[in-house]
Amino acid sequence: MPQLQNDRFLKALLREPVDRTPVWMMRQAGRYLPEYRERRAQAGSFMDLCKNADFACEVTIQPLERFELDAAILFSDILTVPDAMGLGLYFITGEGPKFEKTIRTAKDVDAISVIDGEKDLGYVMNAVRTIRKELNGRVPLIGFSGSPWTLATYMIEGGSTREFRHIKEFMLTQPEAMHELLDKLADSVISYLNAQILAGAQAVQIFDTWGGVLSGPLYREFSLNYMKKIAAGLLRENEGRRIPVIMFTKGGGQWLPDMAAAGADCLGLDWSTDIGMARQLVGDKVSLQGNMDPSMLFAKQERIRQEVAYILERFGSGNGHVFNLGHGISQFADPEHAKVFVDAVHELSEPYHK
Amino acid sequence: MPQLQNDRFLKALLREPVDRTPVWMMRQAGRYLPEYRERRAQAGSFMDLCKNADFACEVTIQPLERFELDAAILFSDILTVPDAMGLGLYFITGEGPKFEKTIRTAKDVDAISVIDGEKDLGYVMNAVRTIRKELNGRVPLIGFSGSPWTLATYMIEGGSTREFRHIKEFMLTQPEAMHELLDKLADSVISYLNAQILAGAQAVQIFDTWGGVLSGPLYREFSLNYMKKIAAGLLRENEGRRIPVIMFTKGGGQWLPDMAAAGADCLGLDWSTDIGMARQLVGDKVSLQGNMDPSMLFAKQERIRQEVAYILERFGSGNGHVFNLGHGISQFADPEHAKVFVDAVHELSEPYHK
Repeated sequence: MPQLQNDRFLKALLREPVDRTPVWMMRQAGRYLPEYRERRAQAGSFMDLCKNADFACEVTIQPLERFELDAAILFSDILTVPDAMGLGLYFITGEGPKFEKTIRTAKDVDAISVIDGEKDLGYVMNAVRTIRKELNGRVPLIGFSGSPWTLATYMIEGGSTREFRHIKEFMLTQPEAMHELLDKLADSVISYLNAQILAGAQAVQIFDTWGGVLSGPLYREFSLNYMKKIAAGLLRENEGRRIPVIMFTKGGGQWLPDMAAAGADCLGLDWSTDIGMARQLVGDKVSLQGNMDPSMLFAKQERIRQEVAYILERFGSGNGHVFNLGHGISQFADPEHAKVFVDAVHELSEPYHK
Repeated sequence: MPQLQNDRFLKALLREPVDRTPVWMMRQAGRYLPEYRERRAQAGSFMDLCKNADFACEVTIQPLERFELDAAILFSDILTVPDAMGLGLYFITGEGPKFEKTIRTAKDVDAISVIDGEKDLGYVMNAVRTIRKELNGRVPLIGFSGSPWTLATYMIEGGSTREFRHIKEFMLTQPEAMHELLDKLADSVISYLNAQILAGAQAVQIFDTWGGVLSGPLYREFSLNYMKKIAAGLLRENEGRRIPVIMFTKGGGQWLPDMAAAGADCLGLDWSTDIGMARQLVGDKVSLQGNMDPSMLFAKQERIRQEVAYILERFGSGNGHVFNLGHGISQFADPEHAKVFVDAVHELSEPYHK
């Protein structure tokens, strides 16, 4: 493997000194880029795009050609694991992800098998290997998966939801079956992320998009516990380097002290949390990733720079900050504004690393 | 006016001693009740129901006939103010509220006038007077409105949203026009809630359903500031009693210290916040209302009682707790389970008030 030319991102995740705060954007390979939309129109469905390693590689690299990003992230979906379990993932424009089959009973849970990452999601590993080759050491590649709780919400609800009625009823009335499901998902995610790591992912992120819809005790029992299990089961070194793990629970700002003890190297923050307060709460246990509201990219350029400056100032001097948006970039964001954002992070963060 | 027979709710809001923790449920007059659905089918649209004082009175009282609730809440919608401003509120089943006209420019904001609560929303005041008469002192009546920020989200987006793209773009690119809009809304809400108070509302709640989608600094600037203005402009005494004000920002758990200084008597909590930690944060500045996840009503009865016991224990002994759900009761909740919830609060809270 070629030498890594830019390791700011990996260093910051491990709270090692860097020259500038590294930056990437969740969903940086996506619909806000005209070149992505063009590729997408040719490739058929979203899942076709994910399953074609050359396409996936091309769109993964696209944002790096425009912006000085410090990491690439595998182009894929958080729901590949339940798809590999046979639930049939598909997308309807404007409605988000859907599953052909749903899990509604303990029997449905019994019928599900733990997947083998390399064997059952070989197309993802092909994409990882292709992207690593194409990156050629330019920046590190991030692998990822949905968290067990987040995967389970889609598997039980069958798609997006506001109320989380079915999964909460399932969790509350059949907690044993719920734990069995989450345990199978955790084992599957371990196998999946380890396969990504062996294929070349240099850091991994667990997206817990829906952990924030729980109360604290239920979050710890049904979401955090299984992310903890994953963190403990992951390969933490490859190619002679530590593989950092990022946990991101959207809406999890009130549970940071618990999350900091769950085995991750870094915690992702949405924009509702003050990153200075978060730093105080987690101390030197983990690094922090975040946390500008993606909607800030709708503002004028000077306002974007002002917000970047504010977040950098709130984090303060010292190590352990990876700049990011607090959620995926909007499909309506102007790429020019994304460039202003990325450049502002590099430019304005320099004094904090002297 | 007849003497109030049950003033537990008003006393708890003001942190005065009570014999048991009072309880009511957000959206307690609603679709989960078969008798409501029957009435609704006869009444035409949701807004027809709101505008007919006899219907509104009947459905307001319905849950009191089933459950030992300590308060009634006016049957109405949080969006009556922008409707009175001429935006044309309507409802499509499954899609939530919508407006015929939206606010998208500074000119649109200029064209809007501050409303007069009694004159422009007379149907609400008729409903309040009718309900007070019918309640005959049984329990206090709560009046309410949406917060300026929450009203503005619907006025600018035109309906429900997940991204809040238009309002955030408006706020970030035209902050002066946004402040003008919020100021007009705050003045309108003051007039509206004061009219409700003069018509007989004995406490008022400001629903800030969408304050939680902002970052801390923007929450303070664009949402909390205007709730503060409202709290300062409200009549705080009527019929020889203090009129308590409840502020409820869904997702606002991280900003409780700021909220506690904003002039409310009580803060509403959603279920993501631990009520024991919240109590520590707000000290003796305000009482707390909440905070069981409405989805808990999907659990078996024993589990519901267990959750009530847990929340009571987290709040602990002493004054200043109004039990409630952390959000409106689900239309799919079983009324029998709501009864278990209400009874459990009264039964299990007694030891905490000795």
